Amino acid sequence: MSSHKKREFHSSREKIHEVIFGTETKAGKTFDIILLICILASVVVVVLESVPSYDAKYGKFFKAVEWIFTIFFTIEYILRLYSVYRPIKYATSFFGIIDLMSIIPTYLTFLFAGSQSLMVVRGLRLLRVFRIFKLANFLDESKIIISALRASRAKISVFVVFILIMVCIFGSVMYLVEGSDNSEFDSIPRSIYWAIVTLTTVGYGDISPDTPLGQFIAAFIMIAGYAIIAVPTGIVTAEVINKTGDKKVGFTNRTCLYCSKEGHDEDAEHCKYCGEELHKDH
Amino acid sequence: MSSHKKREFHSSREKIHEVIFGTETKAGKTFDIILLICILASVVVVVLESVPSYDAKYGKFFKAVEWIFTIFFTIEYILRLYSVYRPIKYATSFFGIIDLMSIIPTYLTFLFAGSQSLMVVRGLRLLRVFRIFKLANFLDESKIIISALRASRAKISVFVVFILIMVCIFGSVMYLVEGSDNSEFDSIPRSIYWAIVTLTTVGYGDISPDTPLGQFIAAFIMIAGYAIIAVPTGIVTAEVINKTGDKKVGFTNRTCLYCSKEGHDEDAEHCKYCGEELHKDH
Amino acid sequence: MSSHKKREFHSSREKIHEVIFGTETKAGKTFDIILLICILASVVVVVLESVPSYDAKYGKFFKAVEWIFTIFFTIEYILRLYSVYRPIKYATSFFGIIDLMSIIPTYLTFLFAGSQSLMVVRGLRLLRVFRIFKLANFLDESKIIISALRASRAKISVFVVFILIMVCIFGSVMYLVEGSDNSEFDSIPRSIYWAIVTLTTVGYGDISPDTPLGQFIAAFIMIAGYAIIAVPTGIVTAEVINKTGDKKVGFTNRTCLYCSKEGHDEDAEHCKYCGEELHKDH
Amino acid sequence: MSSHKKREFHSSREKIHEVIFGTETKAGKTFDIILLICILASVVVVVLESVPSYDAKYGKFFKAVEWIFTIFFTIEYILRLYSVYRPIKYATSFFGIIDLMSIIPTYLTFLFAGSQSLMVVRGLRLLRVFRIFKLANFLDESKIIISALRASRAKISVFVVFILIMVCIFGSVMYLVEGSDNSEFDSIPRSIYWAIVTLTTVGYGDISPDTPLGQFIAAFIMIAGYAIIAVPTGIVTAEVINKTGDKKVGFTNRTCLYCSKEGHDEDAEHCKYCGEELHKDH
Repeated sequence: MSSHKKREFHSSREKIHEVIFGTETKAGKTFDIILLICILASVVVVVLESVPSYDAKYGKFFKAVEWIFTIFFTIEYILRLYSVYRPIKYATSFFGIIDLMSIIPTYLTFLFAGSQSLMVVRGLRLLRVFRIFKLANFLDESKIIISALRASRAKISVFVVFILIMVCIFGSVMYLVEGSDNSEFDSIPRSIYWAIVTLTTVGYGDISPDTPLGQFIAAFIMIAGYAIIAVPTGIVTAEVINKTGDKKVGFTNRTCLYCSKEGHDEDAEHCKYCGEELHKDH
Repeated sequence: MSSHKKREFHSSREKIHEVIFGTETKAGKTFDIILLICILASVVVVVLESVPSYDAKYGKFFKAVEWIFTIFFTIEYILRLYSVYRPIKYATSFFGIIDLMSIIPTYLTFLFAGSQSLMVVRGLRLLRVFRIFKLANFLDESKIIISALRASRAKISVFVVFILIMVCIFGSVMYLVEGSDNSEFDSIPRSIYWAIVTLTTVGYGDISPDTPLGQFIAAFIMIAGYAIIAVPTGIVTAEVINKTGDKKVGFTNRTCLYCSKEGHDEDAEHCKYCGEELHKDH
Repeated sequence: MSSHKKREFHSSREKIHEVIFGTETKAGKTFDIILLICILASVVVVVLESVPSYDAKYGKFFKAVEWIFTIFFTIEYILRLYSVYRPIKYATSFFGIIDLMSIIPTYLTFLFAGSQSLMVVRGLRLLRVFRIFKLANFLDESKIIISALRASRAKISVFVVFILIMVCIFGSVMYLVEGSDNSEFDSIPRSIYWAIVTLTTVGYGDISPDTPLGQFIAAFIMIAGYAIIAVPTGIVTAEVINKTGDKKVGFTNRTCLYCSKEGHDEDAEHCKYCGEELHKDH
Repeated sequence: MSSHKKREFHSSREKIHEVIFGTETKAGKTFDIILLICILASVVVVVLESVPSYDAKYGKFFKAVEWIFTIFFTIEYILRLYSVYRPIKYATSFFGIIDLMSIIPTYLTFLFAGSQSLMVVRGLRLLRVFRIFKLANFLDESKIIISALRASRAKISVFVVFILIMVCIFGSVMYLVEGSDNSEFDSIPRSIYWAIVTLTTVGYGDISPDTPLGQFIAAFIMIAGYAIIAVPTGIVTAEVINKTGDKKVGFTNRTCLYCSKEGHDEDAEHCKYCGEELHKDH
């Protein structure tokens, strides 16, 4: 392959990259919008196909459309892998994994009937909408949410572990109390399931205590669940307030001209790392 | 039409404007109170009419009262359009649209039976009560709420989109898991509906999982829903605190004329730094 | 009546006041503890009496105990009225009204059978426990809660009015959508009741939508209710933080030596009211 | 016993202490991991044993495993008591009580059938995981949660007492309103149970009002419960923010030795005001 051809190949690869990944050029934007419509349409088809009355009528049509979309998404995935400089980095990125997961289920239907329902995972690809339409503002906002959740991760984990141990103990106690009289509490796993339904204030009512003592314990769990909800809320709220504050300090995007470090406070006059004077030309 | 007549016409138009829109004059106030009572009464009539036992007894009376109110509201709407200088601006305003929507349903009953129930939209006109009774304090408060919600709009949207994608995926998984054994999960839309009922901790219990795996996934969704509620709460709380703070800082903008320092309380008479007198010209 | 007797009468009145209202003397403390036990016991009797199986067995005993407590509370109420200097002020105070309401139901049983259940209102008298045991800390805490709720009263009212209008409109829409197919949505009031059950995430499941459109609207109401809960939470949280802050500023308990006014900031050097220098000896 | 032997005894006791309580040495770490696995396994066995179909098949195997774990835990408990210098202090500590409670139920099965279900209390021993893996970060986080909950203890107590009095009164009112028509509200305790189910927004639906007045009161309780949740949330959030703040301000207490200004970041090396070097001796 001559150097000229190589360059051409290179440029065709870059062209594909621009269309598939880019959102700046007209071709890139058009491609992205078509892609979004295809994703939405394919999700709707999967959902409709699961309704027996629709499937009876349009089953063959749905199957055909499904395969068309899957082939289209497969080609798109291969082109993405091909046009990117580091295919492994893309393949292991968040969107790379989702892109792969959204085409596998259709092929799996050869092996397991019904697995096409997993295609709704394609819905996650819709998250691209935020990137495509340059909803920078939305991205910023979700960054605050995500960083707040990340910061409160440890606290939330402790909280969830605590909740899990609680529901196990409550479930076992209820099994002891109600088990003999009430066929609904016939095993500890079922009782734990009930305890979760109750503590989270979901309250299906498919299982509910009959004995006075059982109702007393249930009442206790409910009030506990009603009050405990304050804990994750408090944690996340504190972090959101924290992060919103951080962002506001965001205009301290000042960089030291000597050591190139960032993160200086708005009122700083000297670099906090090297001590040189900072410019106020913000 | 002579100039004199024109002025008379003009003044009659202004008179009507004063009575219908104004809340300062006695006539304007009386009109507004009568209007509020009519709105409340007409909503009550619509609600009562829908109860079969009442409709059987007083059906004709309800119909008559309904038409009287509708004609009254129609005349009022026409007078509002007539008395306002820019009728289009009023017609496209929040209250203008609601005023129109509250008279249309009765006329629609000629075309579609049952559409009179839509008249409860009249209830929205009751929001006028805040303006009429000059509940300035209440208006201020709702402004804080609205501006807090507006500021958190982007974050809430991201959150709702995320929730929607989650329930679609959870619904599909449950359809796969429970669908074959449990006739309640017979399609993905129904399963998504169930996932929403569960994630939001509503928990009707009209659809509930039967298999151990289904209950395990359900338990996971419940705990997720129980913890995730912290996110919108954290977002809105951060904004409410933000807005409340804004309002409060509003009046401590006073600067000492002698030492130029700021941050004085509203009731301060002397500068807390140098002791000189402060000007009240805030 | 001689002056001597009058004084004696006076002192006996003061004695009664000390025992009944006071919590300092031993007699006063003993009386209060006995009173609390009687209140708790009388509430328990009322609750147990309502259980058919207990009532069949111990009905006569319960009735007797009830009358004994009622007569005791009546005497106590009369003595309170007698020993207080301004009986009307007590009778119209919070505890005065509750004291009266807790004795009336028993007498009402002559007129209406079953009204004795209202005696549980006696439970409210238990709030006295906080005063009696000098739970000053608890009282302080509840003052913060109450002042936070009072401060957010206006905002909460706007929120509740908004919720009420929302459920009316949602209820009517569901009546239109589900009414013809689903006998559970047979009137607007019932549909509004369902909308409240759904929006507040209670979700009994006694009424639930059957049609796809109805379930779609229900899903919308649920997500709305799930997100809207953030509003009252945000409001109250902002106020609690506010009030907790106020309390903390407590260490700026500095008083001007010249004009004796308090409330100066920690960094203040001069009195903000008279301009004189403040002492830093905090 | 010679002094030499005593020392040997001492050292063997210290050895055991190191293995059982310690987490630094390899032996200590291995022991702890084995212990954690045993705890998890024994909990799983107890849970599975309660499922009738598993118990029928593997009942004898479960019984045997259970006894092996119990004997192992008993030996461990005795060794803990033996190796600790102050056995009573350990026996009355949080983990000491849980350790004891997790072995008693198996022995109790000689007296009461079914009491082995209480063994799930062993789950609480899993809390050790945080200590064993030196999840210092997690411990810090849970300390913030716990100290926030402790600080809001008084406020939460007032809130819970208030809620309890509320549900008693609402329950009694509903008993009066619904009791005669609706067999579900046949006693005050049941009605109080219903009021708790409703106020906490759990909403089983096993008991639900039928009369219009009952549904009206129920709607009121729901909206109250929906709004009241803001109170504990507000309290805990305020405390979490408080505690998080405490922790953070902890390390920015540095003062510049040249210009005496404070407020430097933890990673600052130079004063951000005058540019002189900062001392790291924090």
